[in-house]
Amino acid sequence: MKTRFEGWPHIVEAQQFSREWIEGQFLPLADHMQEIFEQGGSDILGGKRMVSFFYEPSTRTRMSFERAMDCLGGRVMFSSDNAGEFSSASKGETLTDTIRVINRYRPDVIVLRYNQEIGAEFAAKVSRAPIISAGDRAPGQHPTQALLDLRTIFKRRGSIDGLRIAMAGDLLNGRTVRSLCYLLGKFKGIDITFVSPGTLQMKPDVKGYLNRHNVSFRELIDIGEAAETADVIYQTRTQTECGSDFNKSDRNLGRFIINWEVVGMMKEDAIIMHPLPRVDEITTDVDDNSRAVYLTDQIDSGLFTRMALLQMILDPHA
Amino acid sequence: MKTRFEGWPHIVEAQQFSREWIEGQFLPLADHMQEIFEQGGSDILGGKRMVSFFYEPSTRTRMSFERAMDCLGGRVMFSSDNAGEFSSASKGETLTDTIRVINRYRPDVIVLRYNQEIGAEFAAKVSRAPIISAGDRAPGQHPTQALLDLRTIFKRRGSIDGLRIAMAGDLLNGRTVRSLCYLLGKFKGIDITFVSPGTLQMKPDVKGYLNRHNVSFRELIDIGEAAETADVIYQTRTQTECGSDFNKSDRNLGRFIINWEVVGMMKEDAIIMHPLPRVDEITTDVDDNSRAVYLTDQIDSGLFTRMALLQMILDPHA
Amino acid sequence: MKTRFEGWPHIVEAQQFSREWIEGQFLPLADHMQEIFEQGGSDILGGKRMVSFFYEPSTRTRMSFERAMDCLGGRVMFSSDNAGEFSSASKGETLTDTIRVINRYRPDVIVLRYNQEIGAEFAAKVSRAPIISAGDRAPGQHPTQALLDLRTIFKRRGSIDGLRIAMAGDLLNGRTVRSLCYLLGKFKGIDITFVSPGTLQMKPDVKGYLNRHNVSFRELIDIGEAAETADVIYQTRTQTECGSDFNKSDRNLGRFIINWEVVGMMKEDAIIMHPLPRVDEITTDVDDNSRAVYLTDQIDSGLFTRMALLQMILDPHA
Repeated sequence: MKTRFEGWPHIVEAQQFSREWIEGQFLPLADHMQEIFEQGGSDILGGKRMVSFFYEPSTRTRMSFERAMDCLGGRVMFSSDNAGEFSSASKGETLTDTIRVINRYRPDVIVLRYNQEIGAEFAAKVSRAPIISAGDRAPGQHPTQALLDLRTIFKRRGSIDGLRIAMAGDLLNGRTVRSLCYLLGKFKGIDITFVSPGTLQMKPDVKGYLNRHNVSFRELIDIGEAAETADVIYQTRTQTECGSDFNKSDRNLGRFIINWEVVGMMKEDAIIMHPLPRVDEITTDVDDNSRAVYLTDQIDSGLFTRMALLQMILDPHA
Repeated sequence: MKTRFEGWPHIVEAQQFSREWIEGQFLPLADHMQEIFEQGGSDILGGKRMVSFFYEPSTRTRMSFERAMDCLGGRVMFSSDNAGEFSSASKGETLTDTIRVINRYRPDVIVLRYNQEIGAEFAAKVSRAPIISAGDRAPGQHPTQALLDLRTIFKRRGSIDGLRIAMAGDLLNGRTVRSLCYLLGKFKGIDITFVSPGTLQMKPDVKGYLNRHNVSFRELIDIGEAAETADVIYQTRTQTECGSDFNKSDRNLGRFIINWEVVGMMKEDAIIMHPLPRVDEITTDVDDNSRAVYLTDQIDSGLFTRMALLQMILDPHA
Repeated sequence: MKTRFEGWPHIVEAQQFSREWIEGQFLPLADHMQEIFEQGGSDILGGKRMVSFFYEPSTRTRMSFERAMDCLGGRVMFSSDNAGEFSSASKGETLTDTIRVINRYRPDVIVLRYNQEIGAEFAAKVSRAPIISAGDRAPGQHPTQALLDLRTIFKRRGSIDGLRIAMAGDLLNGRTVRSLCYLLGKFKGIDITFVSPGTLQMKPDVKGYLNRHNVSFRELIDIGEAAETADVIYQTRTQTECGSDFNKSDRNLGRFIINWEVVGMMKEDAIIMHPLPRVDEITTDVDDNSRAVYLTDQIDSGLFTRMALLQMILDPHA
């Protein structure tokens, strides 16, 4: 019997999760984690130790993982959020050496945020302790975000099959939309609309994957055209730390901002998602609309998703 | 019956504390906290979770809050000291989004150091969990520092009414002297002397407040002139990270350094305070003088003050 | 009876340890700590509090100390890895003030990494709580590294007396080789070969010490010449954050890289050490050679060394 993500103890990319695992194990366990959280936590991971090793800060993701561990009674044995800014990384040390060193301290799990495109995969090759990727540098992946996004959609819509999903913003560098596409390829009847300026379109690797998995997609430059029919609008940043800012001409070419007007076109039961941080690509008057889930359901699902993954990886009785 | 800071669960500015609350609740509870600390701590906040969220590092203040929580048996669920330098804040996220996200993890209290002038106030508007300001950017406020300064004075002098207090240094940008002035306005017969170069004088907002509260004040450029009569000299930095350095001509204009000579003019039972860090505005030969409280009583009162505030906010039986 | 490092509660430099203490107390206790670690830890330091105060990040060293405390049941009461980058240190505060402030919170031990050449020594002068140096800025010292290096050698070779030890790389700035030399001076029949470009040779202070302690040494520019006879090769970085890079002409002058060819010349029971981080001065194909201890034994001995030191300092029954 294959356990834990098809027999592999690490979490490095969204493709590794099968539909069977998602529906049969992950989603039910995340619901159970929600109950545990609402009852004030448990001690099922008592004595377990997590290393939070972030080569660049990601305050929200780190908080989600550390709170998840805390909620299950486990311990954050070591936490760093600037391992890449100053420390031995800046002295040129390879990730592989670092992971081997961390393993000598016998952590039960290593949560790794790396500041280059591919990190978790290399780390997993040399690590005895399970690696959970907390995101590689764009355009890498962010697999736990993909799972939490999927759960958010599932909880609101009741299923994934057959949904119309619009993804907007900087799709070239967006880790979260990339990882989500890989997950959506596991489901049926998905229809995706990409909305971005021509210079920031989704890369061919993901498009090829979608083609191979019979996911239909089209590309637009106006969020309004997708708003009426979408079940989900997944908005991403238009200004990023990676220098991929929408410039003025981009903004003039199409419509990429979600505001009250766009929301007005949407179906009653559609939802608006965003991986945060948000700048101005969703206006704040949308925040309290019932369709908006980026400050609520997505954060909650993030916590329950990480709790579920930690429990699968660490609980000897699971 | 109004509890917790006049019915408001947050701590954002010194003005919010009434004299009645200070004398009837805060000071006695801080004394009780001192007993608890000296007995090695307690577990009255067992199971309670604090988020330490600092947009800029303030090692000393963060340590004081985290030690306070530790001493009462509570837990620091998440700690960040550079949330503003790198993380989502640098991607443009609003404080409001961040506070809403943190709240989803159900902390019992959020200690917030913000890197702009007004932060805690905005945070409090959207936070279910109580916000305790650990200082806004100058010239904002630092309300817990004001309380600890007040307690330091009270414990040494036995009362606040009628005291002569000199405040020296960069009064334009000094958060601590600003917040302390707001507290002193609650008391009677206070006489304040501001000692600073003309370019770094106390701002009109505080002066107007003092006038409205019948606190008399005058402005000098020589600390020596205030030393003989002062019950308290509150010295602040003359070189700061905000670019408000006393330049050479400032230094030539007056006398702002506390040295052995100035101490020699002071009354036997006067005290010398400083919020730290100290550069050279108090010479080190003053440190072991019985009047100096900046490396001792102020640090201790800081701990007992934060313990008291956490206990008021978090203890369900209080 | 003198206990704890010859009657001094602090750990600031390698010279302070006597051979008697190393052999009679330290090495046996480190072995005992290894057993405790392998049995999953203990609670002998339950209730004890460590402050991890790093003026510059040193992820690996901080993790080693914090894991050591964790493994003995103690608590990290406060941790900072950038105290010098931003915080009050950047406002000009003296180390002495900071240490006095930290002491008011009654930690049981302060682990200090300082960003100037001499720090721990000054800190120890004003600290009630024991100070353990986690390294001063180069060319300072790193005494706990010296102890862990010594234990690594001892465990592999069975003794220290009579060994031939080659030290290679940037010996001018290398804290670890400097501290190790001071320890080796306590033993007999030691023969040291320094391998470095002329501009990065070991400084006269250490050479004078070795002369006074009858340790013979010579200087080479080709690691190959030392490889055949060495019992230990201690390699250090040739590119450092201190601007002491080996430049191209340095590299052309001699041979400083340990590769498969150099390893092939070495004795079967010789060992290859490195303080990490490693850049390219040991090629990765050497990593799994039985002589290589830098990713294994040295890390482990680091943990057991710090556990032993913490236990000596903190356990009231020790």
